[in-house]
Amino acid sequence: MATIAVPNQVSVVADAEALYKACKGWGTDEKAIIDVLGRRNAAQRRQIRFAYQELYKEDLVRRLERELTGDFEKAVYRWILDPADRDAVLAHVELRKSSDEHPVLVEISCTRSSEELLSIRRAYHARYKRSLEEDVYDNTKGDTRKLLIGLVSAIRYEGQKINKRQAKYEAKQLHEAIKDKKLNNDEVIRIFTTRSKLQLQLTFNLYREEQGTSITKNLPNKSKNEFIETLRITVRCFKDPKKYFEKVLRNSIQRLGTDEDALTRVIVTRAEKDLKEIKELYYKRNSVRLDEAVDKDTRGDYKDMLLTLLGNEV
Amino acid sequence: MATIAVPNQVSVVADAEALYKACKGWGTDEKAIIDVLGRRNAAQRRQIRFAYQELYKEDLVRRLERELTGDFEKAVYRWILDPADRDAVLAHVELRKSSDEHPVLVEISCTRSSEELLSIRRAYHARYKRSLEEDVYDNTKGDTRKLLIGLVSAIRYEGQKINKRQAKYEAKQLHEAIKDKKLNNDEVIRIFTTRSKLQLQLTFNLYREEQGTSITKNLPNKSKNEFIETLRITVRCFKDPKKYFEKVLRNSIQRLGTDEDALTRVIVTRAEKDLKEIKELYYKRNSVRLDEAVDKDTRGDYKDMLLTLLGNEV
Repeated sequence: MATIAVPNQVSVVADAEALYKACKGWGTDEKAIIDVLGRRNAAQRRQIRFAYQELYKEDLVRRLERELTGDFEKAVYRWILDPADRDAVLAHVELRKSSDEHPVLVEISCTRSSEELLSIRRAYHARYKRSLEEDVYDNTKGDTRKLLIGLVSAIRYEGQKINKRQAKYEAKQLHEAIKDKKLNNDEVIRIFTTRSKLQLQLTFNLYREEQGTSITKNLPNKSKNEFIETLRITVRCFKDPKKYFEKVLRNSIQRLGTDEDALTRVIVTRAEKDLKEIKELYYKRNSVRLDEAVDKDTRGDYKDMLLTLLGNEV
Repeated sequence: MATIAVPNQVSVVADAEALYKACKGWGTDEKAIIDVLGRRNAAQRRQIRFAYQELYKEDLVRRLERELTGDFEKAVYRWILDPADRDAVLAHVELRKSSDEHPVLVEISCTRSSEELLSIRRAYHARYKRSLEEDVYDNTKGDTRKLLIGLVSAIRYEGQKINKRQAKYEAKQLHEAIKDKKLNNDEVIRIFTTRSKLQLQLTFNLYREEQGTSITKNLPNKSKNEFIETLRITVRCFKDPKKYFEKVLRNSIQRLGTDEDALTRVIVTRAEKDLKEIKELYYKRNSVRLDEAVDKDTRGDYKDMLLTLLGNEV
């Protein structure tokens, strides 16, 4: 469930006017911006952008970029975009990193629905005049490339039909690949890039039944191998996306110096989806409330924005 | 442009009634079926199916399958389906063939638009409870599999932006792969599975400028290699789809014993798209009109159905 607190009555014209007032003249009223945007859903934010454009002949997103700075700007910019467009931006940013691993790309490919992933690929065309696959090809290599291309290109079957015999066989294939330390083989890539999520979950369950431990525990630990690290995130995203997101949040907060990019990303992308359940998992796992942890680890307008998205009054 | 002759006024209820009458009792009025269905576009055929279901509590497609036989049945069955659903059926039939080559799969992947290919993949889910990628994986192997998976999964950028420097570089890469007889390398697969159609056409043009001959002429001739044959069809579908379809028609008619599957497929899938231009190309290339060639090579209701789709009065 969502965490954002959307009022019953919303006037997008009044919202556009409030944002205009918040940006006008010297100084910016960040609190007003958070008050409006942090409590509107994706459809409303889109209408506010349209209304703003109509009223002031100016692009609201550009205006906010000029007015705001730092982590707060990034959070507002990510939040104001349509979800598919935002994911296209996140994927593009991720692919421009010099690292050989692209965990955010895996996250986007494996935790969005087939239709959402399609919309992201369309948004990527519109924004960058290239296909997402092209940029994945150009910025990755070897087996990791094979896996990533397959993940971003998949349109998985999302019906209820699963095949137990197939899952049993593929659980065995995965176990043998792990045992023989040959994870970067075509069969492993085939399984993760084509099977439906329900089918993969059945495969993981049968894996645990057969082996006595979960597949995540059996994967080589803390390897420096980029393929295995990419595969590990793939498995975790398919196995339990909410648990995966809880862990990203935990890591982003617990490390020395908060990882604001990860923190912003998870809160912004899940606030309208399942952040409520992720919050509960966070509390269960850490005995600290997520909003308290965020409150302690962040500051200023950035903190207020995140807490608003988490559903708090600030 | 389309070849089918759709009347100005169409009543889908009257059409459903006419089809019911044509199927009722002993014997079937094939001419009436051709008269109605052969002159209705995809949206109308869908509405006729709905109206028939409403009126007679029976699935029109199933009823026609029971009434008709042979090539005529196949042509009517292919024609009556929604284009995306029909392509899903064609892809599925193709993948069940024992051959290692799957030219129809290449044809579908490379001559449909990105949005059409997406609809086909969705229709495949709905019909077969699996993804198209899964079945491609299960029924192909080696480098051909890599190429086919990439082709069916691509959502190509369809905007106008092209990149000449990139095309020049990739024309060179293709030339070197042909020269060194190493066509089945990842770079070749990357180019064909990710670049936009306009970009590929620019690459082919620069290839010809640089080498003095077209890439199709430079590909190894009449090879028995399944990868090269798959690649050849890929190149031809991207280079000039109408010319490609003309050649499929020509081969299906000119060979000893008509290839009804190919003949039906091209006429049915192009009749609402560009069959008019394909007909013109056919005449230009063969000095025989396509409808005359079909008239000579086929018989009975099957012939009447094809000629109706070609826009003739029968």
